[in-house]
Amino acid sequence: MKYVNDSKDNAAGGSPVRVALDAFGGDHAPDKVILGAAAAVAEINDMEIILTGDEKTIKSRMEALGVSDKNITIVNADGVIEIEDDPMLIRTVKKESSMGKAFGLVASGRADAFVSAGSTAAMVVGATTLVGRMKGVKRPALAPLMPGISGYYMLLDGGANMECRAEMLAQFGVMGSIFMQKIMGVENPRVGLLNVGSEREKGRELEQKAYEALKNSPVNFIGNIEGRDPTMNLCDVAVTDGFTGNIYLKAIEGMGAFMKASLRGIFTASAGSKVGYLLSKKGVKALSKKTDYREVGGSPLLGIKKPVIKAHGSSDERAFKNAIHQAVNFCGAIGEIEAGIAALKEENQ
Amino acid sequence: MKYVNDSKDNAAGGSPVRVALDAFGGDHAPDKVILGAAAAVAEINDMEIILTGDEKTIKSRMEALGVSDKNITIVNADGVIEIEDDPMLIRTVKKESSMGKAFGLVASGRADAFVSAGSTAAMVVGATTLVGRMKGVKRPALAPLMPGISGYYMLLDGGANMECRAEMLAQFGVMGSIFMQKIMGVENPRVGLLNVGSEREKGRELEQKAYEALKNSPVNFIGNIEGRDPTMNLCDVAVTDGFTGNIYLKAIEGMGAFMKASLRGIFTASAGSKVGYLLSKKGVKALSKKTDYREVGGSPLLGIKKPVIKAHGSSDERAFKNAIHQAVNFCGAIGEIEAGIAALKEENQ
Repeated sequence: MKYVNDSKDNAAGGSPVRVALDAFGGDHAPDKVILGAAAAVAEINDMEIILTGDEKTIKSRMEALGVSDKNITIVNADGVIEIEDDPMLIRTVKKESSMGKAFGLVASGRADAFVSAGSTAAMVVGATTLVGRMKGVKRPALAPLMPGISGYYMLLDGGANMECRAEMLAQFGVMGSIFMQKIMGVENPRVGLLNVGSEREKGRELEQKAYEALKNSPVNFIGNIEGRDPTMNLCDVAVTDGFTGNIYLKAIEGMGAFMKASLRGIFTASAGSKVGYLLSKKGVKALSKKTDYREVGGSPLLGIKKPVIKAHGSSDERAFKNAIHQAVNFCGAIGEIEAGIAALKEENQ
Repeated sequence: MKYVNDSKDNAAGGSPVRVALDAFGGDHAPDKVILGAAAAVAEINDMEIILTGDEKTIKSRMEALGVSDKNITIVNADGVIEIEDDPMLIRTVKKESSMGKAFGLVASGRADAFVSAGSTAAMVVGATTLVGRMKGVKRPALAPLMPGISGYYMLLDGGANMECRAEMLAQFGVMGSIFMQKIMGVENPRVGLLNVGSEREKGRELEQKAYEALKNSPVNFIGNIEGRDPTMNLCDVAVTDGFTGNIYLKAIEGMGAFMKASLRGIFTASAGSKVGYLLSKKGVKALSKKTDYREVGGSPLLGIKKPVIKAHGSSDERAFKNAIHQAVNFCGAIGEIEAGIAALKEENQ
């Protein structure tokens, strides 16, 4: 993963970036969260991590793992919001949970960015209600960076909104375009609308209306794209509703797992193929890295006033470290996204 | 691809199965269609092919390709319905086209099954209006057999219906289940509803209602499945609406292409990796076969009175041959699917 800003120096310029990190989100919390925080602190200058969660546990795990408290502070929290919990609880009884507290820090200005590997649904509710949407944004979108043959593209919405309207899809296009340009360094990002065919009249009423809305937006809209096109890097931003986006991204994940399992099978089939692996190892490792979500770290939630990063539920140390990198970089695009949404609104008036 | 009936002997028992084959559908028509027909005739007993299209061209191409007319007859047709044509034209001005004529043969009883690699949209319209839906079927569904880690599963709807109602999804589940059982030999097929999470209340209103409808249907409904689950073979039938299904299947296709391109890249990177390929060739070829649509041949359109097979647009000889195999096998399940739809109706009354 290459950013415009290499996040050795933070984007805030001046005071250090403070990242609120939910120490109890994800399958491997808190140990991998703590190790990821330590790795990020070692790599990124002018950055502080605020770990939220049961202070005693965090302290004892940091000690056990040999992690120093340099640039890492702890804010005590009470319990965890679980995947199976009603996500709305983040607003009320779970406000003091590790995720709720991390949102609270961002909302009150005590932190600049948020990272968690916890419940996506709770994160969408928490980000929207506790931190708040950017002015003019209808709905925030989960915006994972996805692996293509020759590089990453952004998919949005990856699952935050089951039902979408055309104007929401147009906003997704604008936000994704700005992110890809400012943070990922893609010049004039190509924005495509995920659809069942390239012709303008294809798809449901939603796609037909979104086509027009995107055409009238300030992005480089390349029209409809089909489900195989993003993987071929025929676009930089793939826009769709959150239901379709979630099915799409999980389909890609499933095929990624298929590919890895198949490669493993091929190379362990015989003594000869094991030698074959040794001879082809470099390429296999490069491919494996290409499709490894841990390289990316997490998915930004675009349309929230502050950077919010959803890390993969099964994140390990490297994934958390990279999610923190992403959060720090994301700080540099918030203002631009706000301006983009305002410009879109003006064009539509 | 393994069928219950190995299609060496046709399922009609007695008189030969007659397959109407659109000689001008697909990117490689008519040559690959003709070669596929010849290959099928050589493999399947008691089967006749009726090629539809410009008779002169077909005759001269058969001669040039050295294909005999044993068990192959030609029915002259006028023109082709193109991908970019309004699909509704198949009912009127394009009724005499190669696809329209093939449908006509099936509708009039002069053929038992239909195969074409032409426009999917025209095929859905033609099948529905010229051949007709089975009694009680709301909408036919395109039902591709998709590659999973350890075998095939059926996806439906793969793109015939952009907007679906819950009762349509329940019918898709029933039709897919019967096809997988009768034709593919899967005992008690597991039917899953494609959704964004496993919990009952997940998804849009459509999924919530379809969940109930499938639960009350006579299939082995295993509940909601996520986008990666079918590839892991966690279900035998994946049910969704045609918009989502099309995006899903193209996403899978895209990742399949990614995988193949990556393997090629790995093994051609260096002299060493070329040797690596030779040592791992068997496994690579097996994987390649697993994800090759030509193995399957085509996608049945379920819910039509007669077997209708949509072959892939880029079908070659082998793909056409396998699509014809599929059509012949499909003849054995029409009655069962009709009975399944009738039973579903009774359960819901």
